[in-house]
Amino acid sequence: MNSRMTNTNAPSKLRIVSLGGVDEIGKNMTVFEYEDDIVVIDCGSIFPKEDLLGIDLVIPDVTYLVEKKKNVRGYLFTHGHEDHIGATPYILRQVPAPLYGTKLTLALVDIKLKEHRLGNIPMRVVQPRDEIQLGKFTAKFIHVSHSIAGACAIALTCPAGTVVVTGDFKVDYTPIDGHVTDLATFAELGEKGVLAMLCESTNVERPGHTMSEMKIGTTFEKMFRDAKGRVIVAMFASNIHRMQMIIDSAIRYGRQVCFIGRSMVNNSRVAMQIGELHIPEECIIDQDDLDQFPDENVLVLTTGAQGEPMAGLTRMAYAEHRKLQIRQSDMVIISATPIPGNEKFISRVINQLYRCGAQVVYEAMAEVHVSGHARQEELKLIHALVKPKYFIPVHGEYRMLWQHAELAASMGMDDKNIVIPEIGQVIEMTEDTLSLGEQIPTGGVLVDGLGIGDVGNVVLRDRKHLSQDGLIIVCMAIDRDEAKLISGPDIISRGFIYVRENEDIIENTRDVVRQILMSSDLSGENWPNIKNRIKDDLHRYIYEKIKRNPMILPIILDI
Amino acid sequence: MNSRMTNTNAPSKLRIVSLGGVDEIGKNMTVFEYEDDIVVIDCGSIFPKEDLLGIDLVIPDVTYLVEKKKNVRGYLFTHGHEDHIGATPYILRQVPAPLYGTKLTLALVDIKLKEHRLGNIPMRVVQPRDEIQLGKFTAKFIHVSHSIAGACAIALTCPAGTVVVTGDFKVDYTPIDGHVTDLATFAELGEKGVLAMLCESTNVERPGHTMSEMKIGTTFEKMFRDAKGRVIVAMFASNIHRMQMIIDSAIRYGRQVCFIGRSMVNNSRVAMQIGELHIPEECIIDQDDLDQFPDENVLVLTTGAQGEPMAGLTRMAYAEHRKLQIRQSDMVIISATPIPGNEKFISRVINQLYRCGAQVVYEAMAEVHVSGHARQEELKLIHALVKPKYFIPVHGEYRMLWQHAELAASMGMDDKNIVIPEIGQVIEMTEDTLSLGEQIPTGGVLVDGLGIGDVGNVVLRDRKHLSQDGLIIVCMAIDRDEAKLISGPDIISRGFIYVRENEDIIENTRDVVRQILMSSDLSGENWPNIKNRIKDDLHRYIYEKIKRNPMILPIILDI
Repeated sequence: MNSRMTNTNAPSKLRIVSLGGVDEIGKNMTVFEYEDDIVVIDCGSIFPKEDLLGIDLVIPDVTYLVEKKKNVRGYLFTHGHEDHIGATPYILRQVPAPLYGTKLTLALVDIKLKEHRLGNIPMRVVQPRDEIQLGKFTAKFIHVSHSIAGACAIALTCPAGTVVVTGDFKVDYTPIDGHVTDLATFAELGEKGVLAMLCESTNVERPGHTMSEMKIGTTFEKMFRDAKGRVIVAMFASNIHRMQMIIDSAIRYGRQVCFIGRSMVNNSRVAMQIGELHIPEECIIDQDDLDQFPDENVLVLTTGAQGEPMAGLTRMAYAEHRKLQIRQSDMVIISATPIPGNEKFISRVINQLYRCGAQVVYEAMAEVHVSGHARQEELKLIHALVKPKYFIPVHGEYRMLWQHAELAASMGMDDKNIVIPEIGQVIEMTEDTLSLGEQIPTGGVLVDGLGIGDVGNVVLRDRKHLSQDGLIIVCMAIDRDEAKLISGPDIISRGFIYVRENEDIIENTRDVVRQILMSSDLSGENWPNIKNRIKDDLHRYIYEKIKRNPMILPIILDI
Repeated sequence: MNSRMTNTNAPSKLRIVSLGGVDEIGKNMTVFEYEDDIVVIDCGSIFPKEDLLGIDLVIPDVTYLVEKKKNVRGYLFTHGHEDHIGATPYILRQVPAPLYGTKLTLALVDIKLKEHRLGNIPMRVVQPRDEIQLGKFTAKFIHVSHSIAGACAIALTCPAGTVVVTGDFKVDYTPIDGHVTDLATFAELGEKGVLAMLCESTNVERPGHTMSEMKIGTTFEKMFRDAKGRVIVAMFASNIHRMQMIIDSAIRYGRQVCFIGRSMVNNSRVAMQIGELHIPEECIIDQDDLDQFPDENVLVLTTGAQGEPMAGLTRMAYAEHRKLQIRQSDMVIISATPIPGNEKFISRVINQLYRCGAQVVYEAMAEVHVSGHARQEELKLIHALVKPKYFIPVHGEYRMLWQHAELAASMGMDDKNIVIPEIGQVIEMTEDTLSLGEQIPTGGVLVDGLGIGDVGNVVLRDRKHLSQDGLIIVCMAIDRDEAKLISGPDIISRGFIYVRENEDIIENTRDVVRQILMSSDLSGENWPNIKNRIKDDLHRYIYEKIKRNPMILPIILDI
């Protein structure tokens, strides 16, 4: 492997490898390596798929970075969403290095580091158009619009050339903060010559142009005008600009704002501290004082727009929230779109809100949400401005990367200059070559509670098996030397069947085991065989009887 | 309870109760009772929600019908989808009665009965506009368009009046079979006077009118014209009309058709037998002969449009199908929309198809699917024709029922005449009264393998617990009378942690148990206390150590 990383004779290669974020939406993390300098862009986590039972979070495997720890010059963050910053505390423990990002991004990272009691990590706040020197790399931050404030693309220059990493973006000509995606800088880079572009692909399946965030302001304005009681808005807690727009509109209609939900409270406080969110002090209501305000003067901003069981809106709907329960006069607005997989959860919350008698407004009914990601025409605009020599579609499932490659090809890019990346596949470039390097060891590391990486396939397979048909424990004590059954067999089941009403099945199970024990040599050396026979015979008996396949666990105690 | 069911003095009441299908999409089953006559419309199943671990199917609880078995005159089926017929074999075992439905519907029911080895159930095939006498009820079948052939609404007349049950329907003015929803009969009933309507609500959230099935014919026509290699279409196996349209179009372009997937093969055979599907014998390819035909002459119709792991398309994509594997020249068309909750599965299959290099067409890209359910304007049309006195929205989640009630109110219906039904809530009517009766015992019965109803909350809670953090078994043998530890404690874990790399945790666990045993009275009567202490102390120890909460199962063998 090392031979391919040579920096000796030929012109040095820029090496790019995704540790996540390709063929998946989540855990974005890309490594850029030139000679003995490494910079990392983003450090995201991903929520576990439903077959990862009991797993809390999945983070990238950074074995490669651990091996080259001394070369890592820094982490650059494009923006503060979980899929770009969520793994930071876990990764920093293994590979510490300085962090770079805009004010809000680093503030959100900082909340995480504090939760994990990680101090002493140098952080440097950057402004758009700032340039940072990191070994032989220069990083330039470029302002873009996205569904979170402080989002940036990054142009990374090294002797091999400049690589533009778009991060997540859209081209909103009327953004809330008035700052349009910095098209001029993209154009300038394009004119100077860009070696490669890594561009996000989330919305590449959608034609046209994403609607402006401003548009939904009109919808909210109308709702505040019409609403008679409280207005409760559930949304992503990181979308500070949308928060600002909704709050401004609410204040105009005589409402004060109350933040409910941990991340909503945290993020709004941080955003106000760093000057990203502006609310007159007297317009903020503490949730403990909520009852003192007339309904028509209240706006509640809360979490739970994805139907998460423990989040604000869900608990309000199910009357589990200490301070606020939904009542008939409430108008509830869900200002988000379900992340694929969450449709069912949010749908249940909406049903429950209707049961409470509230008026509910969600995406299907009104323009209360727009995506933060560029659609086809916006992507084309960036391609046209940046004009990269090589193109690497990122931030998308395989079909999106593939369609993004097609989009680039349709604009005239040579297929040979496009690489659909894979996690761990090193892509090497010089000024005028593009080639594939080695595959580095990487993948997903499972976080379960405080354990990082200690749950693997065997454990997950067991969890899956247990979850489907439960288990049967067959327990007995045998005198190893005398080859004599001393106690048992006892049959214990969990998650298998309702025992009281099915005593015959349990009793028959015991008979099957008894027969095996009677016909077997019980001396110690034969125990593995006995255990296998118990597994096989019980499996067969139970499957024939009720077509189930519980885990069967024979335990022999040695007396 | 019985006092409310009196049929003695006052005018008898028509009693209507949903055993499923309200506040859920699935297991549709409605009971109509007048004096000592009961008829049941539909008998559906529902797929288990993801928290019903290991459960195969959920069916309605028919305790009420079992009690009144002798009054049940028959089951009427509106159409042959699983959510309307899927529970039939299970329910018929408990409450046998004759079955009524159109040819295709009963043919699909018959496949199920044969699988369950249920013979001797009288079945009567009906034609649209047929009238059936069932005790004091007369049932009239009314042709409607839906995403399956042979769909009908049912008008049920008894001395209290006529109730129209729409079943699932849409108003397609250019349906494949040329037979438009029988608006004339709805109108005629409306003119004569309809006591109540039970109308489906699936698409009530959508404005306008559902696109005609014919429209997607144009899309397919274009694809057959352009496709160079094989065309593989994944779709619901019950949509016989769409099948016919696609096959006709394929044949025009010189292709022959091969059915792959169990339900696709079964349904197409049944549909051809009963004359619902017409394909020239010589245009059908057996899957074993597939390789003998040039790619450009092949159309494959297969299952797996929802990304189901064992279905045709999924297995082809992952190279697990014996006869057909996807290759680069294939065009794959997914002619379906994901059922909520299945988005992730189908998305994975699409990614895999792209990896195989196939050209993939799905709903986001072209008009290859239309819904089988009426949107707002179609619903309004039926309301306007039927003009019921009372309205009961059915077939939808709570928010849809609620919005359907609003739609009826917006057309001038008095709120007092609308009931949003609940499962098990009896609704009673006479010619001019509407009231709520008692709540009958009902709900979902869980089917797991061959077991029906033997998995309850305790078992599911255990499965859930096991699936999240696995389990730890602490096993020991104690001499009850001598109060002496004979063997153990042995620690066995499954689904908890990767043991080889975490021997210290397991060893420490053993120490915790040893300390409890050393400090405890080991005589038999104290065993329950010992077990509780083991559970509590281990729980605390493990949670502090790694923030996990496995099931802890102490077992003491009596020596």
